[in-house]
Amino acid sequence: MSSVDGKTALGLDEFGLIETYFRPLAEGEGGALSLLDDAALLHVPEGLDLVVATDMVVAGVHFLPDCAPDRIAAKALAVNLSDLAAMGAEARWYSLGLSLPGDVSADWLRGFAKGLNAAQTIHGVSLIGGDTTKTSDGLTISITVHGTVPRGGAVRRAGARPGDALCASGTIGDAYLGLLARTGSLDADADWVVDAYEKPEPRLSLGRSLREIATAMTDVSDGLIADARHVAQASKVDVILDITRIPLSATARNWINAQPDPEKAMISLMTGGDDYELIFSVPRSNRARLAELSKFAGPSITAIGRIAAGSGSVLVCGGDGSPINIPRNLGYGHF
Amino acid sequence: MSSVDGKTALGLDEFGLIETYFRPLAEGEGGALSLLDDAALLHVPEGLDLVVATDMVVAGVHFLPDCAPDRIAAKALAVNLSDLAAMGAEARWYSLGLSLPGDVSADWLRGFAKGLNAAQTIHGVSLIGGDTTKTSDGLTISITVHGTVPRGGAVRRAGARPGDALCASGTIGDAYLGLLARTGSLDADADWVVDAYEKPEPRLSLGRSLREIATAMTDVSDGLIADARHVAQASKVDVILDITRIPLSATARNWINAQPDPEKAMISLMTGGDDYELIFSVPRSNRARLAELSKFAGPSITAIGRIAAGSGSVLVCGGDGSPINIPRNLGYGHF
Repeated sequence: MSSVDGKTALGLDEFGLIETYFRPLAEGEGGALSLLDDAALLHVPEGLDLVVATDMVVAGVHFLPDCAPDRIAAKALAVNLSDLAAMGAEARWYSLGLSLPGDVSADWLRGFAKGLNAAQTIHGVSLIGGDTTKTSDGLTISITVHGTVPRGGAVRRAGARPGDALCASGTIGDAYLGLLARTGSLDADADWVVDAYEKPEPRLSLGRSLREIATAMTDVSDGLIADARHVAQASKVDVILDITRIPLSATARNWINAQPDPEKAMISLMTGGDDYELIFSVPRSNRARLAELSKFAGPSITAIGRIAAGSGSVLVCGGDGSPINIPRNLGYGHF
Repeated sequence: MSSVDGKTALGLDEFGLIETYFRPLAEGEGGALSLLDDAALLHVPEGLDLVVATDMVVAGVHFLPDCAPDRIAAKALAVNLSDLAAMGAEARWYSLGLSLPGDVSADWLRGFAKGLNAAQTIHGVSLIGGDTTKTSDGLTISITVHGTVPRGGAVRRAGARPGDALCASGTIGDAYLGLLARTGSLDADADWVVDAYEKPEPRLSLGRSLREIATAMTDVSDGLIADARHVAQASKVDVILDITRIPLSATARNWINAQPDPEKAMISLMTGGDDYELIFSVPRSNRARLAELSKFAGPSITAIGRIAAGSGSVLVCGGDGSPINIPRNLGYGHF
């Protein structure tokens, strides 16, 4: 495409770097072509549905400017794969749109490609193509991931029914503490919560395993309460969360207890987002299967609430069932 | 996803606008879900391959800052669809990553959605999802398009064979003149060349019709010479272009003749890019079918050169066969 007025698409030196660093990422198995064509050609095996998700990651908005390039890359891919996990999909392919600031260095690009390579190897996906452009503005990464599920087998947000239990994987709020640690407002145990923030692990295996157990599922990206609301609204039910059962790390528990207003602190963890855990509804009839699965699943699984008849609200209750008021519309929106 | 340090993802008012303007775009037919889930669920019919392409469009790089939002949107989708056309694919679905500057207005968003809606209606595709984020930097649009072709039927860049004719659709260079007109360095016939630059038409019908006729194909986005080189390199042949046979509009011919160095002017048109015409190689055995197709195809089809044994070069010749020297590496790179 033509460029406008002196600003140019990537210069040739940088294009050479991209050839050097990104082309190898496209040469895995998985049915994708090399990057020689206008588009990638993929074969979706018979009997499978295709699952597609896009997440955009912007410097200064979604990561701190001084974040290491390999971490930026790996997280950008991971948050996309988390959307596939939430549908119960197998991750297969991804495409990458990369808008690079003019002063990007070869070292930075090398680190970025290294992080992508590590993440795609761990998660079993391969690069099928994309586009790069140079900008005077900050780095923007747009990834579209492609996965597959057996036809009709995807777990949707709609599907939760009154009487189902609501469960969560892992712990909630550590990424929020990681962001605090990175910005200087938290001391203790900083390293591992920074990892929770910068190196989220998409729950792909767990998501797949829940395909025949969960009636609805989503991942916790915008914040536990906001994402629970997505399930409530799509399923046309209410979600009732028991604030005393939200799974917390020891670090998070200690942090809460050290705050002047522990309840407010707890709500910060439940609205912070970036957890990339799964929340899902399970009918009584599937609880035994879930218990069996829990024994072997990587992350812990905790019942954190229940589904009730309603019209799309999230209600948070204390251990005694008393309602706790949560400012509405916390958490971030995606369309 | 958490945001960093005071910068936020889209505020709720803007999120409401997006709900208002973009959700309707996802409610067409085409097998996609509404935007209620973490990911879109698509069914690729048996016997078809999936074709996927990503193009990123950045304010100030790919369009002028004062360009109307409906044109920006329609062009962003069109340039992506052009990649599907170049593979001979049917266009089906697209996802949209949109990074919006903080000062974006409701009017601007309304115009943008209107342009997208018009373009998706014309080209028969529907929105399957995406992501929005707010940035202090300029607008960035990342679109990933999905199409289908009969299994094994995609036209690749590799496949051109010595003896094939190289053909082009439409005319070359009008978009380059449109950019000149928009930046004040061209007077005559300005309106329609501005349209050629700002409202490109992806050659989807022609691309599909060429599936059984062309041995290799690509679209002219980076410039005729750069894109011909993509075919030459992928096919491991040389492409020989006859500079006297490049199809030009009357406006382009007049402009060339008014320049102090007409040959240099002609080369500008052949390297300017943004044409979104198709170039494709046709073996002798398919020329009769191509002639038949030409009678009914929308754009004109012109033989502009031939394929010769070689190793990935583009050679430009005058009408008498004498070589014309073209600075190497003109045109922009994509990976």
